[in-house]
This record gives sequence, structure tokens and C-alpha cells, in this order.
Amino acid sequence: MGTAGVIDEDGPVLGVIGGGQLGRMLAEAAAPLGVQVVVADPTPDCPAAAVAREQVVGDFEDRGTMAAVALAADVLTYEIELVDPDALLAVAEEAGLPVHPSPEALRITQDKLVEKRFLETAGVPVADFRAVDDAADLEAAFDALGAPLMLKARRGGYDGRGNAPAGSVEEARAAFGDLSGLVAEAFVGFDRELSVIGVRGDGEVATFPAAENRHEAEILRETIAPARADDAVLARAESTARTVLDGLDGRGTFGIELFEVDGEVLVNELAPRPHNSGHYTIEGAVTSQFAQHVRAVLGWPLGSTALRGPAVTANVLGDGPSRRAGLRGAEAVLRTPGASLHWYGKREVRDLRKMGHVTCVPVADEGRDELLATARRLVAALSFS
Amino acid sequence: MGTAGVIDEDGPVLGVIGGGQLGRMLAEAAAPLGVQVVVADPTPDCPAAAVAREQVVGDFEDRGTMAAVALAADVLTYEIELVDPDALLAVAEEAGLPVHPSPEALRITQDKLVEKRFLETAGVPVADFRAVDDAADLEAAFDALGAPLMLKARRGGYDGRGNAPAGSVEEARAAFGDLSGLVAEAFVGFDRELSVIGVRGDGEVATFPAAENRHEAEILRETIAPARADDAVLARAESTARTVLDGLDGRGTFGIELFEVDGEVLVNELAPRPHNSGHYTIEGAVTSQFAQHVRAVLGWPLGSTALRGPAVTANVLGDGPSRRAGLRGAEAVLRTPGASLHWYGKREVRDLRKMGHVTCVPVADEGRDELLATARRLVAALSFS
Repeated sequence: MGTAGVIDEDGPVLGVIGGGQLGRMLAEAAAPLGVQVVVADPTPDCPAAAVAREQVVGDFEDRGTMAAVALAADVLTYEIELVDPDALLAVAEEAGLPVHPSPEALRITQDKLVEKRFLETAGVPVADFRAVDDAADLEAAFDALGAPLMLKARRGGYDGRGNAPAGSVEEARAAFGDLSGLVAEAFVGFDRELSVIGVRGDGEVATFPAAENRHEAEILRETIAPARADDAVLARAESTARTVLDGLDGRGTFGIELFEVDGEVLVNELAPRPHNSGHYTIEGAVTSQFAQHVRAVLGWPLGSTALRGPAVTANVLGDGPSRRAGLRGAEAVLRTPGASLHWYGKREVRDLRKMGHVTCVPVADEGRDELLATARRLVAALSFS
Repeated sequence: MGTAGVIDEDGPVLGVIGGGQLGRMLAEAAAPLGVQVVVADPTPDCPAAAVAREQVVGDFEDRGTMAAVALAADVLTYEIELVDPDALLAVAEEAGLPVHPSPEALRITQDKLVEKRFLETAGVPVADFRAVDDAADLEAAFDALGAPLMLKARRGGYDGRGNAPAGSVEEARAAFGDLSGLVAEAFVGFDRELSVIGVRGDGEVATFPAAENRHEAEILRETIAPARADDAVLARAESTARTVLDGLDGRGTFGIELFEVDGEVLVNELAPRPHNSGHYTIEGAVTSQFAQHVRAVLGWPLGSTALRGPAVTANVLGDGPSRRAGLRGAEAVLRTPGASLHWYGKREVRDLRKMGHVTCVPVADEGRDELLATARRLVAALSFS
């Protein structure tokens, strides 16, 4: 659309690197807008494939895969953070296509040390941190920041993989082996984990109200929106997220994770894509984070980020050994008024793999605690077979 | 799912005869539930194709086309009323698949005389009617029911095509030529056009609150939900719709059109599929009519039909000569908080063709009149180029 203001007869085509659940929900949000989606993913019949117009099967590292997507697309985006930003930029330039968010955002978030420094430069509060590349660095970090420390692999971490608390060099060695390529963060005794979904559009920025997250073993289990925090904390989280967004380039939806500590907020992490903690916006907000990403990437006006009411999302995580399996127990979800099942269509269940989610919204003025209890109960009763 | 209660690793597959906007929105609603959709449609790249897993390109009359869909599907349904019920039943039986709603519903609604008789037998009030096959029948109808009469072609009518008021045999001849195969209905001076979207599930029936419709030249322009009618009328419309649903077989979403006349309701027409006047349920209800159709056809529990608030839908209709064209002016829709654009991705604009719709929901307690004014203004500003 942009300046011409026209949705083509074939719709604009979004080329998406990655075809997991985020790509699938992006395609679900794109369809009503007349926007077509082509995804690249190495797994044949990836979750997004059933909804997207087309899947290019190929590795994310493969420029040919990205070029094939670019050939069919009007604009490029990504839903995973493993993409090589240089390769993506080169492919986009060769095809003469814009890519959003900026590959620079990938460069920042792919390295937790770079990310921390970015956040610090952006002027938002973060936990004190140090780069760690050997035992001496770590000892110095203990001296400066105290023990225990939260140690994070700078690269390749995801859903808590590559994060471990350590009270000593020995514990750190046990968790990481080699001590190079780490970031040590002062341990934060937070009161609450928060996140803000933010959107950078064409000359506009929007944020959804701060949501509250519950992680277990560093994997997101539940999101409660809005967060059950003081209004002042909610406002601080949103304004802090805006400051982060102001420091970024390009357009798109971003997930910004924060800690609430004694009424203040610290920024923890950043994702340059729709975020698991924003899934509640599908039913809970006037515009979903996925529809916002489609709008933003295309340079279209953003939608309202107002909530339609409270909403709670609980993740459906795989358990047990890896296996091909279906979902059991979904009737209870389907029978519960206001509960929405999202099943990502992954062919293989794996332990702690994100298989789907359930979002609960009120049908009779239920509050957040009640919605949370319902979502938790429904997800606990699901199983795989 | 059914008794086993399992969503397969590949999801159940819904085979849909017809791939227009209803098939597209059905596929949009199926995706979050992990349900895949295969559609049959004669137009390559039909609206549903971009969202469905697969399109079988072929005529609706062609058994081979239906058989190809059946081969890929776990259950068959349809989104157009032109399907031959006998052929559909034969294909379903050969493939050992259920088909919902019952092809019998097609048989009823494909012939307006049969439909009127069905409604009469079901025990709901309808406008007085007569079968007309020649001038003598028509004269008798004028004598019995007065003039003018609403004349309708028994078969092949759609969106008002094949409907015309007539005050005399001459006027009827001018409109229809041959006077055979018509139904004459007493002219109803209605106060309001209403519709109820009803769902027949597996041992359960649900209805959405009655909505109010505004037609022009017999084509639906706007739907206001809930209808701006007295509570007693709303209740009567819903209970009348339930009586109609009780008379039908099989599962699925049905659209039931009614007239409000002096506080009473008359049933006008019936559609055995999701209905244009139910599009507001996508944003306006806890469960959309499309999600309900998916659930119902699969025998899954139905969702809540409660409204999330008022909602108004306005159709985006083509104008001018047939041409390949895009949509202009969508920015205003995208910029309006609470307005949702649905563009069906049809490749050719045709005069009065349904190209898309806009639904408005409140973001700041806007009432139905205000939502209607907004939707009307937004749609009026759209054009094709």
C-alpha cells in the first residue's frame, strides 16, 4: 500500500524467514488483510505451511532459500533470531526489497553482550553485567556484582537454554564447561516478570499494556494481561519499552522483557519479532501483535493496542520423549466459554517444546485470577498420545 | 477428535466444496484449532486458496473434483449452495466420510418453494406464499395475497438475483419472462430485517444474538449486532431460529433471515452455511460463526455465542465494469481504532460483487449508531483501481 494506498489484486506478499508457530500466527493475521505469506523453513510441512501460500523448504543459513522467498515477496521479515543478518541484508538488497525489522536488530539480539550494551546506551535500566571469557573475568564479576550471578551464553541461547545461575567458578564450569563467550549479570530478585509488546510502524510507535509472565525452568508458562502490578509500574514498563523501541531501527513488532524490582523496572531481554508473551493479544487486544507486525512491516498504519479486557495465555508444552503425537483433552478447552485453543500443528512432541497455547478471556466479568486458574487447569489436563 | 478426543499430528482435514470468501474465512478460523482445510473451486487461486492447505481446481458439478477433496479430507462440508446434494452424498458415501450440514439442507434451500414448505412444517411464521407456474397461478396469487407480490425464482436465486416485486402479470413478465418455477409471497412491510446465526453441534444447538441487516437492491450492506430492536423481539427471533434449527439435520452453522413486523417475526430465508450477516462474529463474538462451523462439522464442542460487545459490519461491494483491480483507501480503515479490514483477495472487481468487509467494534464505549456511522463512512471512502 504505502504511498499508492492500494492493496493489489494478489495482495502484498510477505516473505517470512522461519515457519514455526510465529510464522503460522503471522499468516493467520495476514489473511484477513488480504496479505499473502511465503515462508522459508527447513522442516517440510512446518507449522506455517498449512496457512501460508507457499513454503520454501531450506536452511536459514542458505542464501538460496532466502533468495527464493525474496523472489516471491514484496517485503522480507523473519520470525526466528537465528538468521544471519548479513546474508539477509545481502539477499534483500539484491532483490531490491525492504527487510523489517532491520537486520541490525538481529545483530543486537543475537549476542547478549551486544544487547546489554545496546540497552545501556539506549538509557534504560538493566541489571549490572560483565563480559566473561575466562575464570579471571568471572572472579572479577563475582567481586563486582556479588554471588550468585546469572550466567548467559552470549550467542545461541533460547528459552533459557544457555542460561544458568552460578555461585562459584566451579558451578559455572559445571554448567558451561568453557567459560568464554558469557555474560555475567547481577542476580535480580525480581517481584514480577513483565513484558511489553511494542510496535515500530512507519513514523509511529505503539505499545500494548504491560503483561505479567510466569516462567518455569526459564520457559514461559503463563502470561496475564494486563500485569497485576501497580499502575505506576505498568506506566514505567511501557515508557521504558518505548525508550528501547526508540533506540531501534526499522519496523515491526518487538517483545521487551522486564523485571519489576521494588516498584522499578529493569529491561532483561529483547526480541525483534512477535513474542510468546504477546499471544494473548489475539483474543485480548483490539489488534493482535501479529496483525501489528504485518501492518508495520508493510508500512501500513498500526491498529489500536487497547485491550478488549483482561486475558490470560498458558503455553501447551510438550513432555516426555520425542515422538509423533496428537493432542488429547482438548474438549475441555473447547467446552470452556471464552477459552481459545491454538494448536501449532507441529508433527513431533518434544519435552518442553511449545506445541500450542490456550488463551482465556472473560465471558462473565471473570477477573485475571480466575482466568489464570482456568487456563492453568485446562492446560494441565492436556496430554499427548 | 470425537470420542477419541485427539487432534492428530496433521490435524483433522476439512474438505470444503467452494473456495470463496466463506471458505477463506473458514480456513482462517480453522488454522488456530490445528484444523487443515482443502477446498474445491473452479477459479484458480480462489479466495480460500491462499489460506487453505490445498485447492482442487474443478467445477462443483464435477464428481471427480469432490472425490479429490474427499480423498484428502476427514469430513466434508460446503460453503456454496449450488452443490448437487445427490452427487455430494454419493461422493461422501463412497469415501466413507460424513458430510455436514446434511445435503438434505441443500435440497431444501436450493428451491424456495421447498424451503417455504419446510419452514411452514417446522412451525415458524412465514409470509403467505403460493407456487406460480403460469399466469393463472399468478392471478390467483394476486387474488389471495394482494398486490404487489414479491416474486422469487424457485431455483438459482442468490443475493436478490431472481427476486422482483410485481404489481401485475405484465410486471412479472417484464421481470421474469416465463412465469414458471416461481414463488409468490405476500409483500411484507417489515420494520426491520433481522438474522440469527445458528449452530447445530453434536447434540447441542447454539444461537448468536439476533443481528439487524440493511439491504439495498437485495444485497446486504450492513449488519448491526445486536439488532436495535426490543428485547422481546430479539428473544422471539432467537427462539424462532431455534425452531428452524430443530427441523434440520446434520451439523454446522446456518444463517436464518427474518423480518420484524409489528413486534412479531417472520422467517424469510435460510442458508446452510456461515452467512454474510454473521461476519461480525469474527471480532464481535467470543467464538466466530466460522470457528463454530469448524467445531460443529467435526463434532467438537461448540464455543460461546456471547457477544464481546456491539459490532457493526459493512460490506465492501465492487462497482463499475468488471476488471482486475486493487483496493484504494484502506489506510483510513487501518487508522481507525477498532475497525478491522477483511479483504477477500478476489482477482476481479465486478459490480456489486462482495470484495471484502469492514467490522467496527468499540474501543471507547461507542454505541451501535456510532459504529454504524464509522463503518459506513469507511466503506464509502474505499474504491477500486
